[in-house]
Amino acid sequence: MKKGLVIVNTGNGKGKSTAGFGTILRAWGHDFPVAVVQFIKHENAHFGEIKAGRKLGIRWEITGNGFVMPGDDPTEAIERVKKGWAICQEIIASGEYDVLLMDEFTYALHYGWLDTDEVINWLRENKPPMMHVIITGRSAPQALINFADMVTEMNPIKHPFEQGIKAQIGIEF
Amino acid sequence: MKKGLVIVNTGNGKGKSTAGFGTILRAWGHDFPVAVVQFIKHENAHFGEIKAGRKLGIRWEITGNGFVMPGDDPTEAIERVKKGWAICQEIIASGEYDVLLMDEFTYALHYGWLDTDEVINWLRENKPPMMHVIITGRSAPQALINFADMVTEMNPIKHPFEQGIKAQIGIEF
Repeated sequence: MKKGLVIVNTGNGKGKSTAGFGTILRAWGHDFPVAVVQFIKHENAHFGEIKAGRKLGIRWEITGNGFVMPGDDPTEAIERVKKGWAICQEIIASGEYDVLLMDEFTYALHYGWLDTDEVINWLRENKPPMMHVIITGRSAPQALINFADMVTEMNPIKHPFEQGIKAQIGIEF
Repeated sequence: MKKGLVIVNTGNGKGKSTAGFGTILRAWGHDFPVAVVQFIKHENAHFGEIKAGRKLGIRWEITGNGFVMPGDDPTEAIERVKKGWAICQEIIASGEYDVLLMDEFTYALHYGWLDTDEVINWLRENKPPMMHVIITGRSAPQALINFADMVTEMNPIKHPFEQGIKAQIGIEF
């Protein structure tokens, strides 16, 4: 049996988004039409993956305004998440893409900015059967894990920040 | 403090190699010179990542002849691992690359086809200080984990094979 998969990369370790980008690269290698919608991360960021996506001609939407810190007003972040989800819905419903990466999307569900059941029901009814959707981020809700076909948890065993080593261009961003 | 990292992606879950490809994509996005040496996986494979690497003009060496099954004669696999490691040594010692991905390299150490301490000592003495080396695969030896700067374990929470769904082009290969 073959079917389009809902894939979730979650956990507190590295590699959730990065594995998503790797899957996008792999599918792009097969000339599959792919798209990326990044949530939360700032729209003006110049991350390596964004530069790469532009060079590859991949549809690559960055919808966030940075991670929200405790005490921050989340109003704009919530509005941006809703816009980002609308872009995903348009991409999924178009039937024109084989793979969509919804990067850092779990936060929108975890914080309740979008209703998890509504998102799952929408995907169940609207995702083309052979289309793959990859969702990344920490704290994936249990309902999403139950709905997904493939779930991987990335666990940190050792992280260089613990040793006082800074985030490195080309590796962490 | 900044330094070139030794990164290990291990565990039984998905995303070890794929996160490695994502890191390569990210570094390529920054126009960093990057290289990939794939172990074990068959040199005639037409995986999406290989096609992508060729399209991107990345140095991408595939050195294996497929996973060795119990009862198989490992002689050729061992020879190929040694050749692959020699290529990695040449790439690392050249000082011309910022990031090298040694995909599925842990198996060579786990099976004792290369001596883990010798590999670690060679890396310690020869890796340019700012160069990043990413090593992926299951069963990373403890000595490699101790030596590495960043280690992530990918754990399978749910896998579609359990539901009778086949490996999918563009996602799994």
